[in-house]
Amino acid sequence: MAAESKNNRATLLISCPEKPGIISTVSNFLLDHQANIVQFDQHTTDPKAGMVFMRIEFDLSDFDASYDKLHEDMRLLAEDFKMKWQLNSKRERKRMAIFVTKQESCVMELIWRVKSGEIDADIPMVISNHNDLREVVENQGITFYHIPVTPETKDEAERKALALIEGKVDFIVLARYMQILSPEFIARFPNRIINIHHSFLPAFVGANPYVRAFNRGVKLIGATAHYVTNDLDEGPIIEQDVIRVTHRYTAEDLKVAGRHVEKHVLAHAVAWHVENKVIVHGNKTIIFP
Amino acid sequence: MAAESKNNRATLLISCPEKPGIISTVSNFLLDHQANIVQFDQHTTDPKAGMVFMRIEFDLSDFDASYDKLHEDMRLLAEDFKMKWQLNSKRERKRMAIFVTKQESCVMELIWRVKSGEIDADIPMVISNHNDLREVVENQGITFYHIPVTPETKDEAERKALALIEGKVDFIVLARYMQILSPEFIARFPNRIINIHHSFLPAFVGANPYVRAFNRGVKLIGATAHYVTNDLDEGPIIEQDVIRVTHRYTAEDLKVAGRHVEKHVLAHAVAWHVENKVIVHGNKTIIFP
Amino acid sequence: MAAESKNNRATLLISCPEKPGIISTVSNFLLDHQANIVQFDQHTTDPKAGMVFMRIEFDLSDFDASYDKLHEDMRLLAEDFKMKWQLNSKRERKRMAIFVTKQESCVMELIWRVKSGEIDADIPMVISNHNDLREVVENQGITFYHIPVTPETKDEAERKALALIEGKVDFIVLARYMQILSPEFIARFPNRIINIHHSFLPAFVGANPYVRAFNRGVKLIGATAHYVTNDLDEGPIIEQDVIRVTHRYTAEDLKVAGRHVEKHVLAHAVAWHVENKVIVHGNKTIIFP
Amino acid sequence: MAAESKNNRATLLISCPEKPGIISTVSNFLLDHQANIVQFDQHTTDPKAGMVFMRIEFDLSDFDASYDKLHEDMRLLAEDFKMKWQLNSKRERKRMAIFVTKQESCVMELIWRVKSGEIDADIPMVISNHNDLREVVENQGITFYHIPVTPETKDEAERKALALIEGKVDFIVLARYMQILSPEFIARFPNRIINIHHSFLPAFVGANPYVRAFNRGVKLIGATAHYVTNDLDEGPIIEQDVIRVTHRYTAEDLKVAGRHVEKHVLAHAVAWHVENKVIVHGNKTIIFP
Repeated sequence: MAAESKNNRATLLISCPEKPGIISTVSNFLLDHQANIVQFDQHTTDPKAGMVFMRIEFDLSDFDASYDKLHEDMRLLAEDFKMKWQLNSKRERKRMAIFVTKQESCVMELIWRVKSGEIDADIPMVISNHNDLREVVENQGITFYHIPVTPETKDEAERKALALIEGKVDFIVLARYMQILSPEFIARFPNRIINIHHSFLPAFVGANPYVRAFNRGVKLIGATAHYVTNDLDEGPIIEQDVIRVTHRYTAEDLKVAGRHVEKHVLAHAVAWHVENKVIVHGNKTIIFP
Repeated sequence: MAAESKNNRATLLISCPEKPGIISTVSNFLLDHQANIVQFDQHTTDPKAGMVFMRIEFDLSDFDASYDKLHEDMRLLAEDFKMKWQLNSKRERKRMAIFVTKQESCVMELIWRVKSGEIDADIPMVISNHNDLREVVENQGITFYHIPVTPETKDEAERKALALIEGKVDFIVLARYMQILSPEFIARFPNRIINIHHSFLPAFVGANPYVRAFNRGVKLIGATAHYVTNDLDEGPIIEQDVIRVTHRYTAEDLKVAGRHVEKHVLAHAVAWHVENKVIVHGNKTIIFP
Repeated sequence: MAAESKNNRATLLISCPEKPGIISTVSNFLLDHQANIVQFDQHTTDPKAGMVFMRIEFDLSDFDASYDKLHEDMRLLAEDFKMKWQLNSKRERKRMAIFVTKQESCVMELIWRVKSGEIDADIPMVISNHNDLREVVENQGITFYHIPVTPETKDEAERKALALIEGKVDFIVLARYMQILSPEFIARFPNRIINIHHSFLPAFVGANPYVRAFNRGVKLIGATAHYVTNDLDEGPIIEQDVIRVTHRYTAEDLKVAGRHVEKHVLAHAVAWHVENKVIVHGNKTIIFP
Repeated sequence: MAAESKNNRATLLISCPEKPGIISTVSNFLLDHQANIVQFDQHTTDPKAGMVFMRIEFDLSDFDASYDKLHEDMRLLAEDFKMKWQLNSKRERKRMAIFVTKQESCVMELIWRVKSGEIDADIPMVISNHNDLREVVENQGITFYHIPVTPETKDEAERKALALIEGKVDFIVLARYMQILSPEFIARFPNRIINIHHSFLPAFVGANPYVRAFNRGVKLIGATAHYVTNDLDEGPIIEQDVIRVTHRYTAEDLKVAGRHVEKHVLAHAVAWHVENKVIVHGNKTIIFP
């Protein structure tokens, strides 16, 4: 893809109640704004009385002249059709803060994929409640902040984190962050905090999933990336995967094997979020991969 | 899905050169014909100078009044935009002839999925160059024809088969049929003959793939469903899958394990073909699953 | 494998506390009894103070002369080493009763694999609490018994089932049997009742897993084969597998897709049980595939 | 596993013609040498006239006193039974030279797994025919040598490489090394050079597999790790894996997706080699994972 065309690329996500002619309406609207559709994805829960979801990727021939106008007119259209919508352009690279505790594999995978261009975003900072990963993160040229968290300092710690990220990041990735965020914090980033849970949810909700998987004698272990809500491990699932294990795996072996699943599942979820390929509806996601 | 609505359901497949506004044009055309779009899938090889492929599934509120008109008007639209297209309605159930030799698993899987409703088609007949499967097929209430094939009688055998299927079937499935069809026969069913090859093509093109997989010591074996062209094992691939094997597998074990992959891969390919989810472009397929 | 050699084939499963020289002891014991080892598998939980599990497959050159003696002497060896053990020969084909309710796919898969030789066992009878599957089962030449179950007649129904299977079957397969067996019934077949649960346990323990999977918005659905214990859905897991699904799947689509996973997972578990490849230890299985 | 016990751990790999009592012989031999067997794996191609392969992992209670004696006596045993064998101890960590060209992902994955302890080996040096990866490799604290290769200097380049690795490494990993090694070089490291081929062999033998996979329209792409022989891409396969792709993938997308398969397949193969879990027999591998 030529750099030039990518600079004119935008994405529109729409959720709205089904209505005859809705696809015509949207495609005509885009045509009127000189948008050249590159990819069009759609999903309907029920063509008679359901919801319709659309993702449209398009190029604007004269981006500077038309993008703001498009944004403004979209507001009116959305009102008429009761649309929830989101318009993004490639010109504004998404910025993620990564929250970690001590485990290296997930954060390093994200950094590696950002550097290799597989995830088209920036990482302005990594925030951790421990200092263990400072060196490996800073070695990659990325800013690292240590904000310790104790039961007493939790509120203060969240305020510090907020002060650091406010206006500087678009979403947050919990890349094995072993703290529970407060409802107030979560409310600031609706559907914009991605967590990796180290089990195939809803199996092994809560702590120590690998030990519990070992004790249960499962034959597959998995990982789940989901948006964070106030219900622990209950937010909308973005991606899941599993790998096969045998009776020869110790609980420690499960952990080692699981780390590879975790980092891939998380990387896919983050990439899709960055590319505006995820629509959240209720407690589920529609993914247009 | 209500039976009523399914009876009004139709599918339109379109391939044409990219052109600005093409999605508006098609969706407006359908809106003008009172079509209520249920699912819209699209793929572009290159938004500037490539090909665009669309699959639109829609309900017609008054099917009897509008379907023929839609068909007629589509002809004109297609001319204007140099479209290759295909319009199908749920009212015309697709009919497949299954060609087999001696192996039971693929043909029985297809029959089973038709009976369970997973494949929404009819099987007016099974044709075999051997008599071995007559009983299991007829036990399922399906007509079985035995047309022996020798090098000398090959032409005649194909003529006999053609006489049986002419006007009675829409497509042909080679469910482990161990004969090579003539170019003349194939030409009558362009992109309408589906073959299952018992390897992960292009590995092990030709005969005895399991023996060759055993000798090569591969760690995965696979199967490939593809449309038949005059180039043996070279037609457009519809679906592929593999399973893991180990040094403990004999060549016979590979065959047994492979049969399960074969029948699933073939069943998926046939289901997609029946649901008009496959567009062939050059030697490749676009699948809208 | 020549039929002759298969007739002389036997399998020995052993579980015992670790002890230096235990492998020598067992292999010398077998050598003394003219057993020619074909396959030897072993697993240790902890070489210092754990348990050791062995599976040895061997041919007896003069089966009639040596098998009974081997069996008798094994008793003594087992006493010395505190072994739990199981000796089986290919001459005694395992016999399974299949319990079903209304769903066809699992029971038909088992019948099909028995007929094709993939599962080397007999099916003397299928027992159902409904009459729906009588025809498809009897068409395969297999005896079908209808034993209705109501809350009031449950005890009586189990007694009837026991009367039918007593002495006629070696193990029971619950191939989507929608009744909970009593502890008394289960106690008669320890580690000899295999159930298929239509979810990736421990996710969606209990009823209606597909509906709950749909509501949770999972991206993979699975199935679990396990031995039945008194704790519902908590018995030792034999095999699990999953397949990928998307937001396009309705709850009904999940059910259809899940049926294929179920039947394969169950078939693998039954095959391993038949081939004496499963050792149960506590609430886990050791599988020597 | 306690560090102490790991220090006393050794592995014995044996390939020999089948002979009654062979397992007794080997286990008695080890018992006589005070070896406590931790894991015993065996495979027979044919119990009557085939080959038998064994892998035995064991602890020596007094390592210093018994290891050399064991090694010496093994020589005699091997002569009697025409055994090919290999004895390794955990005390001698395996050392690998990694050969690369310009692609980063495979070499970095190996370094990362060595650092995390997943691969229990050393990497004394990385050798490349280009200078591109010097910085990322040296940043990990690993020695990097640049040995340019042209058609004219190929022999000399191999001599330089040999001089560097002679006596310093136990095996070589070609982690996307885009040069063909000479038969003389290969002969020095029989079954000790591991290559990663970026396709599911034997599909797409030779150059540019991703472009050819794109042109063929395959639905899965894969990678193959194998030992290097003089027949290009024909050596014994150690591991293979695939991932699913769609019509939306460009040739470049296939490359990006494939890199993840490549690095995992290669890492598994290297780990198994390091843990002495691979026996080569003819052009196949027996893997005891």
